[in-house]
Amino acid sequence: MTIRIGILGYGNLGRGVECAVKHNPDMKMEAVFTRRNPAEVKVLTQGVLVYPVEEAPSMRDRIDVMILCGGSATDLPVQTPEFARLFNVVDSFDTHARIPEHFEAVDKAARESGHAGLISAGWDPGMFSLNRLYANAILPGGRDYTFWGKGVSQGHSDAVRRINGVKDARQYTIPVEAALDAVREGGNPDLSVRQKHTRECFVVAEQGADLAEIEREIVNMPNYFADYDTTVHFISQEELERDHRGIPHGGFVIRTGSTGWEDENSHVVEYSLKLDSNPEFTASVIAAYARAVYRLYKEGQTGCKTVFDIAPAYLSALGGEELRKLLL
Amino acid sequence: MTIRIGILGYGNLGRGVECAVKHNPDMKMEAVFTRRNPAEVKVLTQGVLVYPVEEAPSMRDRIDVMILCGGSATDLPVQTPEFARLFNVVDSFDTHARIPEHFEAVDKAARESGHAGLISAGWDPGMFSLNRLYANAILPGGRDYTFWGKGVSQGHSDAVRRINGVKDARQYTIPVEAALDAVREGGNPDLSVRQKHTRECFVVAEQGADLAEIEREIVNMPNYFADYDTTVHFISQEELERDHRGIPHGGFVIRTGSTGWEDENSHVVEYSLKLDSNPEFTASVIAAYARAVYRLYKEGQTGCKTVFDIAPAYLSALGGEELRKLLL
Repeated sequence: MTIRIGILGYGNLGRGVECAVKHNPDMKMEAVFTRRNPAEVKVLTQGVLVYPVEEAPSMRDRIDVMILCGGSATDLPVQTPEFARLFNVVDSFDTHARIPEHFEAVDKAARESGHAGLISAGWDPGMFSLNRLYANAILPGGRDYTFWGKGVSQGHSDAVRRINGVKDARQYTIPVEAALDAVREGGNPDLSVRQKHTRECFVVAEQGADLAEIEREIVNMPNYFADYDTTVHFISQEELERDHRGIPHGGFVIRTGSTGWEDENSHVVEYSLKLDSNPEFTASVIAAYARAVYRLYKEGQTGCKTVFDIAPAYLSALGGEELRKLLL
Repeated sequence: MTIRIGILGYGNLGRGVECAVKHNPDMKMEAVFTRRNPAEVKVLTQGVLVYPVEEAPSMRDRIDVMILCGGSATDLPVQTPEFARLFNVVDSFDTHARIPEHFEAVDKAARESGHAGLISAGWDPGMFSLNRLYANAILPGGRDYTFWGKGVSQGHSDAVRRINGVKDARQYTIPVEAALDAVREGGNPDLSVRQKHTRECFVVAEQGADLAEIEREIVNMPNYFADYDTTVHFISQEELERDHRGIPHGGFVIRTGSTGWEDENSHVVEYSLKLDSNPEFTASVIAAYARAVYRLYKEGQTGCKTVFDIAPAYLSALGGEELRKLLL
């Protein structure tokens, strides 16, 4: 069985999905769909064609799972329900607060059309969510901590780039080591926003710009930086290209809790990711869940799922017997 | 809905399950069964009675899930299939090499009787297995590492206690920090048994015993110690009671792998546990899977499952909507 994958949207994430498909021998890239001019989109996989998004509906028979690689702000809330009427779908919708309504919309569309869909695949939401759920189920009454980084925050980098006199910028979110250590010691510390993460900005200024003013604007920016200790470095465009090209990220999910008749024993459960490429890792999670969604569909299941609803064995290309023998 | 739990075998694990039930408001201890004289078994939960194991079959209507807390060597291979003919069951069978045959036996019994069962709940097998599976599915072509400790190994402690002139002993398995660091750096090192873990023994010798001979016997013991760097400390019985009463354990599951068209980006996925009480944490995992097994049974599912077959949401007392809102 080869799972034929379609990609809608060929940015960093779409390209990451294409690379993930290459790493999974039971999958095959079938087509890429774009809102841009297809002639201007060059994909990596030999023989795979790029189509305008309008042609997708006519290719329903050729695609087992459509992977939606647009943004969570405006693309996915429209696209995922729309495409769930035509295809099995997976997306990486990551606006945590709007997950319930997105779920409802995709669920309705998928049920009505008889498809299976999965939203919010990736690492947060995604693998981090799973680890929160498992640890919560095992240690009721415990406490959760999530730290992000060290990694590039796209939204914060964009916010810096919008400042007058800024030519380019890259922002890193960095977990505070002392806060991590305090959590791991099991003391259940109350940590403020400022105590958990710091922010570091690498800024390329336009010639003649007022650097002191740029720095002041960054560190005082409400929501984005004002609640954090922020460091600003001015560097050249060459340095930015040379030292800050990657899109690394990662983080830590920690739950502490106690057991015993009088809660006399403490436990620390920790999951962490150190990722060279945020979009490629996200895409790799998506690929595994595309396999699961296709299998559920083949079993006759329809509607919207999340990572919480998928038995882990569905993610693997190995059968149950092999999994029990090799990984249990 | 309250899930009524029965426990068979009231040692450290059985007592841990009793404590875990206390932490889960949707569960209730119903009865403890023992092969010992019930009058000599004192449980913690007010009002819960202890019965001879022979009376278990007559209490089928009072118990939703029977948790088997015996040992993997001789108890569980017989008990879990036997009780799966009468009850929904969960065990923590941990002889990795014999899991396939144990699975078959429990599956057959549970299918024939219309019950649901789950074997090998705990942390290894259990949470470590889950993390191996998820990381394998996400990063095909990567490499797995499992480290155990720092923690007490019961089997190794017993082996030391069997040596002539040894009155009591406690053995710790300790992961080598340098090996952990090498793995986390993503270099995919090949590590020998000796490079991954060291062993530390605290021994109470009988009066007049030949300490040098005891140490020689320990460090040269085949299978148990000969392949490791082992340190032996002789201490008093009082010191052993004071400093080594606990049963801590834990460990690390790490997978490293790469993504990108030419595998140009590396990733490290790490899961770790730091446990004050090995049996109580194992029992807490078992309790969560007892909830899952009962739900599957209510849905009409029968046969044997492992942690690989259970969608994470089944472990939580929260509903799907709450989970998506709070933990995704």
